[in-house]
Amino acid sequence: MAGRGARDLEEGFAFAPRFSADGLIVCVAVDAKSGEVLMLAHMNAEALDKTLATGVMHYWSRSRQKLWRKGGTSGQIQTVVELRVDCDQDALLARVSVGGDGGACHTGRRSCFYRRIESADGGARLTPVEGM
Amino acid sequence: MAGRGARDLEEGFAFAPRFSADGLIVCVAVDAKSGEVLMLAHMNAEALDKTLATGVMHYWSRSRQKLWRKGGTSGQIQTVVELRVDCDQDALLARVSVGGDGGACHTGRRSCFYRRIESADGGARLTPVEGM
Repeated sequence: MAGRGARDLEEGFAFAPRFSADGLIVCVAVDAKSGEVLMLAHMNAEALDKTLATGVMHYWSRSRQKLWRKGGTSGQIQTVVELRVDCDQDALLARVSVGGDGGACHTGRRSCFYRRIESADGGARLTPVEGM
Repeated sequence: MAGRGARDLEEGFAFAPRFSADGLIVCVAVDAKSGEVLMLAHMNAEALDKTLATGVMHYWSRSRQKLWRKGGTSGQIQTVVELRVDCDQDALLARVSVGGDGGACHTGRRSCFYRRIESADGGARLTPVEGM
C-alpha cells in the first residue's frame, strides 16, 4: 500500500479493521500480567463488536463455524485489559486477564504454544517446551 | 476436531503445519528478550521451509504477493531463537532476535501494535500506546 489511504490507515486514529476475504481478522491474545502469548484465533465483525461492547473476548471458531465466547464452558474467560491494532489494521493484539484456572488452551495447558519446532534430518520435529 | 487425528496433531511430535485454503499459516513474532509482540504475518510453505533452513524469518507478503525475507532492505533481520506451533498446528509463534535498529515495523516503530482501540460514542477510536 502507498499514498494517502495507507498513511491514514497507519498514522490516523480512525479504527478501520481490514477483514480478509472470508470476513475474518486474526487476533493474538497475551496474558496482560506475564506477557506470555496464550493463543491465536480469529474474529469476524460480530465477534469484534461483542468484544468491544462487553470487554470479554469473543472469537469466531473456524472449525465449528460459530461465534465463540472464550471460556463460556471452561471458565477461562478472557477479560480485555487492552486491545491494539497493527499498522495496516489487519491484525489485533489483546492483552487479557484470564479467569478460571488461568489457562487458555483446550488441552489444559496455559498457552497453546507448548511445542517447539526443531529441524531434524532434513525435516522438522516437535519437542515439548519445558514447564508447560 | 476430535478422535485420533486431533490427538496426534495436539499431543504428537510430528510437525504437520495446517495451511489455510490460500496456502498460508499465520505467525506471531515476539522479541525473545523482552517478550514484546512485534508483528503478525503469514508464511506459505516456502517461507516456512526457508525459515527452518536458514534460521532467519521469511514471510509471504500478501500485499506484494511475494516471498519476503524480513529485514532484507531495512536490516531488521529476525533471527529465530525459538519457533513454536500451537495445539492444532495452524499458527506459529516465533521468538526472535532483531537486527538493525531492533525494530520490526515499516513505520519505524519497534512493534506494529502501537495503537490502542478504545470504545467511544458507540464506535471505536484509536489512541497511541505510550512510549512507542
